[in-house]
Amino acid sequence: MSNSDFGLIGLAVMGQNLVLNVESRGFQVSVYNRTTSVTDEFVAAHPDKKLVGSKSLEEFVQSLASPRKIMIMVKAGGPVDAVIEQLIPLLDKGDIIIDGGNSLYTDTERRDKWLGDLGFRFIGAGVSGGEEGARKGPSIMPGGPASTWDVMKPIFESIAAKVDGEPCVIHIGPGGAGHYVKMIHNGIEYGDMQLICEAYNIFKAAGFTPAELATVFTDWNEGDLESYLIQITSKIFEQVDPETGKPLVDLILDTAGQKGTGKWTIMNAVENAVVISTINAAVEARILSSMKDARVAASSKLHGPKAEISAEKAELVKKVHDALFASKIISYAQGLDLIAAMGKEKNWGLDLGKIAAIWRGGCIIRARFLNHITDSYRSNPELSNLMLAPYFTDLLNEFQQNWREVIATATLAGIPVPAFSASLGYYDSYRSAVLPANLLQAQRDFFGAHTYERTDKPRGEFFHTEWPEVIG
Amino acid sequence: MSNSDFGLIGLAVMGQNLVLNVESRGFQVSVYNRTTSVTDEFVAAHPDKKLVGSKSLEEFVQSLASPRKIMIMVKAGGPVDAVIEQLIPLLDKGDIIIDGGNSLYTDTERRDKWLGDLGFRFIGAGVSGGEEGARKGPSIMPGGPASTWDVMKPIFESIAAKVDGEPCVIHIGPGGAGHYVKMIHNGIEYGDMQLICEAYNIFKAAGFTPAELATVFTDWNEGDLESYLIQITSKIFEQVDPETGKPLVDLILDTAGQKGTGKWTIMNAVENAVVISTINAAVEARILSSMKDARVAASSKLHGPKAEISAEKAELVKKVHDALFASKIISYAQGLDLIAAMGKEKNWGLDLGKIAAIWRGGCIIRARFLNHITDSYRSNPELSNLMLAPYFTDLLNEFQQNWREVIATATLAGIPVPAFSASLGYYDSYRSAVLPANLLQAQRDFFGAHTYERTDKPRGEFFHTEWPEVIG
Repeated sequence: MSNSDFGLIGLAVMGQNLVLNVESRGFQVSVYNRTTSVTDEFVAAHPDKKLVGSKSLEEFVQSLASPRKIMIMVKAGGPVDAVIEQLIPLLDKGDIIIDGGNSLYTDTERRDKWLGDLGFRFIGAGVSGGEEGARKGPSIMPGGPASTWDVMKPIFESIAAKVDGEPCVIHIGPGGAGHYVKMIHNGIEYGDMQLICEAYNIFKAAGFTPAELATVFTDWNEGDLESYLIQITSKIFEQVDPETGKPLVDLILDTAGQKGTGKWTIMNAVENAVVISTINAAVEARILSSMKDARVAASSKLHGPKAEISAEKAELVKKVHDALFASKIISYAQGLDLIAAMGKEKNWGLDLGKIAAIWRGGCIIRARFLNHITDSYRSNPELSNLMLAPYFTDLLNEFQQNWREVIATATLAGIPVPAFSASLGYYDSYRSAVLPANLLQAQRDFFGAHTYERTDKPRGEFFHTEWPEVIG
Repeated sequence: MSNSDFGLIGLAVMGQNLVLNVESRGFQVSVYNRTTSVTDEFVAAHPDKKLVGSKSLEEFVQSLASPRKIMIMVKAGGPVDAVIEQLIPLLDKGDIIIDGGNSLYTDTERRDKWLGDLGFRFIGAGVSGGEEGARKGPSIMPGGPASTWDVMKPIFESIAAKVDGEPCVIHIGPGGAGHYVKMIHNGIEYGDMQLICEAYNIFKAAGFTPAELATVFTDWNEGDLESYLIQITSKIFEQVDPETGKPLVDLILDTAGQKGTGKWTIMNAVENAVVISTINAAVEARILSSMKDARVAASSKLHGPKAEISAEKAELVKKVHDALFASKIISYAQGLDLIAAMGKEKNWGLDLGKIAAIWRGGCIIRARFLNHITDSYRSNPELSNLMLAPYFTDLLNEFQQNWREVIATATLAGIPVPAFSASLGYYDSYRSAVLPANLLQAQRDFFGAHTYERTDKPRGEFFHTEWPEVIG
């Protein structure tokens, strides 16, 4: 019976949860996993659900209504191509393949062309929300032809998270646009997490216990910083290790892992000559965290002040709040700037307001302040930089003094705050009508005759000076 | 008469100066330029020199003694391939082609294989020193087969800069190793220049005039910061604009250009998961400097303190010296770390001490402190990070307090110091036995079941917590 509305290949946790989500919206779902026992166990565990398990890919494909809608949830890279190659001989023209993994957008563009040339339809869809989001409603960022989006829209909109009744999914744009936007989303997530870690490190130096920190983050989650990551951070500080009775966070090793999307985001920013210094600092911080042995060895040789901050606690909480929020605004300003630059470069017709809107629910970076980002772009679609939206300009102007004081305090106490600093460096550079690059241009002209422009002449006129010879 | 010792294709300034350098060491040099008039004028301008100008590539190739040694000095990218393709049918097996431009090392690896398969010999050589270095003695970083290096050694050593009698050229390694090391050299150069600019910006905010700055940099060039870039900076501050009578530096527009090597360096660092945050900040600063109109527009909207520093001038000079020098050490530690990682990855057998040694003369980053880098690696070839060489550990420990104070002062005064901050962030992270990444790992386990290690369990054991559900 070819009557399933949707098929999914790859029953790891994310895949299973997406299936249960789709099924819960009234759709019949066929599932397939390379290891058949996984399929059998999954279907058996949900006897009351409209699930069709298949032992072979042929059987799986045959169980789907036309045009078939098949989502692939396997490891990014070669495995996605392998599944597509197996599917191709089994499909009919017009069938739809959706790659829901964290694929590199250039791979998505290649597959879009490959499958389009064969008469199939392809959607590269970023899916954010972790395991829980997949089950209850993720944020979905699909890219591909608009006509294919129209076919998928009812299913995508029904399974996506909802905010104020609006589903957290839109047609991002053609080709690799969906996976691209998901990649930047992940980069921004790196930034958010690192900024929270820097706040935590400062509080630790000021003597805050995990219990006190749980209160700080719970309070913050009731204010303008309300967000999923702040919320789970409060839960993390509450968590007690059952084995030792100690706060669990104190027992977790400080070595962070990373996957491809952070690195890809930086490479893309470099290619586009867009500054995303906060995300950059976050990726660098993860790399440095992974060098645990080197750090321990260096800690006794390289000196610094005692990492202690003496401050009235409530006052410090307010200052760090401002530093964190200001840095977060910068990180989003940078990430959105990169999306805008790339969208223009690729002619993707991206709508930054709508992209911010679908990040308000379901995904890891969901946050109250995304409402204001959405509003900012809705009231001014031509906004050149998020910092210049009136709402955010006002916040930055309000926060900037405390932001500076927090960084100065941490700097003098030997506490690394690379992402706070990188964010403020961007802010102060961006608002500098004059930067010291005049000296740099003089240097380049001196040793390489690269020429320079002058402040007292029109742009586009280039000058060279015959500099004195130097000995050496 | 096939008797020229050396041939050079591409008579732009660098090419011309290299020719005059080679010729001055007693070699007869054949030259070729696509536009024949350039060749004619160049040869005519030097009637007393052993130069052979050719109107055709055939004639040029025929004028060279066997095995032919032909250096290409044309724009990196397609033009290099185009010249090679034209040369191939004219050459004999065993002839040597040297690409002396700023080619991307992966292009060099491709050409190395391509020409090697055809029976020719190829050297990808980074050449640093600008126009003046090319004429008087550059630092040369050749990569390729050791046997080809042996043939080229007499010419390379005779034209290279000399420091304490040692020529500033060694066989860097096989394949793309030479152009790779030149790429990182350029990245480090970006860092050095940005650090000087940040020092300048601080001094400007403290009211230093160009004349006072000329004195500061002249003094610095007589101390431990002695280097080409510090030296030319002092000359730049002395330069008066003939048209207006004002200090020239004040009339140069603060928008910096950049070529490919800075970007390539960052991409490579990302690929290798090595932190080069100082170079990164330098590249970002150039990008921000180029956004002049956006900065001017933002400057009236985004607030900050008045960019004024009140400090006793001599004391500030000392503090900024320490901040600059410490940041410079970090930048080199990062750059050398990247070279080491890549050398290991590619099995290039790189010798960091020898690489630092050939940067002591000829090139743009030549500096007295490279002697100490050379010594550090000579006494400990297994040095894991330059910061941990006793000489540099001592300096960092001595400088770290002033370094912090300079950054804190600039931060509170609204003066961007992204490269100073990024350098200190690296230092403080690297010397932190404990970083806040434990919280980050908890977050990753919370939303993605990524697992974590524990401080009270052996490395390699991974744990997962069943975190509470959150609503949202």
